Amino acid sequence: MQSKRWLLPEGVQETVPPESWRLEAARRALLDLYWRWGFDLIRPPLIEYLESLLTGAGHELDLQTFKLTDQLNGRMMGVRSDMTTQATRIDAHRLAATGPARYCYIGSVLRTRPEEPGGSRSPLQVGVEKFGDGHLASDLEIVSLMLETLAVMGISRSYLDLGHVAIYRRLVVACGIDAELEPTVFDVVQRKSRPDLDRLAADQRIDATTHARFSALIELNGPADVLAEARSALGGIDSTIDAALDELAAMVALVQDHYPEMPLYLDLAELRGYRYKTGLLFAAFAPGLGRELARGGRYDDVGRAFGRPRPATGFSADLNLLAALGEFADQRPATGIAAPGDNTDAALLAEIRRLRAAGERVVTGSPEAADAPGCDRLLEHIDGTWRVRAITTKSDSHG
Amino acid sequence: MQSKRWLLPEGVQETVPPESWRLEAARRALLDLYWRWGFDLIRPPLIEYLESLLTGAGHELDLQTFKLTDQLNGRMMGVRSDMTTQATRIDAHRLAATGPARYCYIGSVLRTRPEEPGGSRSPLQVGVEKFGDGHLASDLEIVSLMLETLAVMGISRSYLDLGHVAIYRRLVVACGIDAELEPTVFDVVQRKSRPDLDRLAADQRIDATTHARFSALIELNGPADVLAEARSALGGIDSTIDAALDELAAMVALVQDHYPEMPLYLDLAELRGYRYKTGLLFAAFAPGLGRELARGGRYDDVGRAFGRPRPATGFSADLNLLAALGEFADQRPATGIAAPGDNTDAALLAEIRRLRAAGERVVTGSPEAADAPGCDRLLEHIDGTWRVRAITTKSDSHG
Repeated sequence: MQSKRWLLPEGVQETVPPESWRLEAARRALLDLYWRWGFDLIRPPLIEYLESLLTGAGHELDLQTFKLTDQLNGRMMGVRSDMTTQATRIDAHRLAATGPARYCYIGSVLRTRPEEPGGSRSPLQVGVEKFGDGHLASDLEIVSLMLETLAVMGISRSYLDLGHVAIYRRLVVACGIDAELEPTVFDVVQRKSRPDLDRLAADQRIDATTHARFSALIELNGPADVLAEARSALGGIDSTIDAALDELAAMVALVQDHYPEMPLYLDLAELRGYRYKTGLLFAAFAPGLGRELARGGRYDDVGRAFGRPRPATGFSADLNLLAALGEFADQRPATGIAAPGDNTDAALLAEIRRLRAAGERVVTGSPEAADAPGCDRLLEHIDGTWRVRAITTKSDSHG
Repeated sequence: MQSKRWLLPEGVQETVPPESWRLEAARRALLDLYWRWGFDLIRPPLIEYLESLLTGAGHELDLQTFKLTDQLNGRMMGVRSDMTTQATRIDAHRLAATGPARYCYIGSVLRTRPEEPGGSRSPLQVGVEKFGDGHLASDLEIVSLMLETLAVMGISRSYLDLGHVAIYRRLVVACGIDAELEPTVFDVVQRKSRPDLDRLAADQRIDATTHARFSALIELNGPADVLAEARSALGGIDSTIDAALDELAAMVALVQDHYPEMPLYLDLAELRGYRYKTGLLFAAFAPGLGRELARGGRYDDVGRAFGRPRPATGFSADLNLLAALGEFADQRPATGIAAPGDNTDAALLAEIRRLRAAGERVVTGSPEAADAPGCDRLLEHIDGTWRVRAITTKSDSHG
């Protein structure tokens, strides 16, 4: 009964040693990786006014965002549920760089509901965004950094999923699907439901050509040779679709060239983030688990809502999840020196100070090794000087 | 008008380069410091159910806490406005160590209102807590770590304020002040208002002895020799008060011994955190600014609310404030190599990979140095190999 009282809300985690130190080490390794790639750290605020937080990319996240009232002026604020929009605002207004700009970030976000049953409502979001360059090279840079992130985290088995929202978007226009019908088609495509697509045709809500094209679209997933099928099924309908297929082909070639070991799949009906994404979509998955490890894509139009449209591409991931699935090892030594707690012995205090300055972990006030978790040595007064000696009997009371 | 639209809420900050990297470096330096002192990292959650978040220490923080409804079950949650209670819960239930336990933490907290006009509503709280040891040595350990924290942050000028809540608490009992009158006396003592105290006596709400004792109390602040005055004014009234004065004297001696350069003041009417603090109070201030840099104290009773009373002492600070006031320097080099973005040149890609593995920052896709913020070198194809050369014309477009 009492233990239940202190339960955390569903999908909310806390982290304790040694996992907390491992997460800290992973944070440092990833931010250092992004720095070496030229991505600069930004620290967006935990809360913002809703009109800023949900602008552009954010409308989809409205339902996911916890709302708060600013008691100073009555305005509505939200707790960030994603940092992409914040990065876009910072790029547009705070930094306003003229050339390409690269940002990385890490921090907790909150969501009213988990994205999948049993999922997290407080992911430790880590990610990168690149603004101001619309070339495919930037998408490859982001995909590469996503795969390097998985490598740093010790996730050796994953596969890459590629999609492109322009295909569905332009197909809707080419088939003359109106705004009333579009949400239904969107839903059918997302669920890849052939029976429901057949029903739309039977009910004469879509014509035979439309039925054939969308039937093709929901089947167009699998290894890279799906692209050839896509060319024959959807090529020549619309120049933007053709360009999207060209982009996918180029990205496939680049990934196969740079990461030949990485299994690669295409899914042309993948529409995650469709409302604000504008081009290539990419996601990394853990085989077997079906868990998405990281995802991203191009979202060139988001900056427009902030009055500064710039090409943009990025990815993000939940570091808690990456740490749970990966074999990333904390290099911090799990050792320490247990020292007496006498605050009057100047020689002892000087030796403790010297040991700590040399990078040692010294736990004071612990004459008994059992009192000092994780200590493998003792600081003892031997023959008139303070000396470190190994603890022979193993009595680690830690965790 | 438009720029105003993207303003952040009052007291809410965001951090951009290079300050964001400096904050990251400060985070690492402080957590490494705490690790060397044997304090283990905990990562409490951003939100918890209110009954857990506001238990014990938290009642005072109720007004400061943003409330959220858990849409999964309708229960009320709060965004943490302080991490001390969370550390207490983790010590009591999650880790339940039997011996002394040392924790450190860092993370954003949110407050409905700033603690002072113009103050932060989203401090980056950093702190340590020690549980399970009621000796003065533990308070000294915490005070020492607080002063080491200021030293790491490059804050060279500060002074230490010491107080003890047991003096006021027992004086109330000794003077027979009832529960109805106590809040009035508390308010008068907090404001150190001699006129209001005189009025209480004039209105016969307190007797002459009580008036004399509390008049003494609100005057008992200043350098260490205040303790002698305190002994003569308040000694012998109550054994707990005598013990508190002994603790203060011992702490003064220890601090003068270990940190002889640190200016030290006593304020026996200081009651910050009175409702949950139980013993010594300590705070570090920046001279001139009157800004509190860090504060802490003993709060032995908080664990009781969690069913596990343990002695406890700790301190916390706002890292954003420490970074703003301190001269902590980021050691991360502000340099980089601008490299071409050709994804087909295997020799180029291999050289970029080698440079990054060696710890260099390499920004790709930037044939022009002006496109690569913070780069001082170029990767160029010279005589058939890729070589790094210094940029002679200074054209740094950064920040």
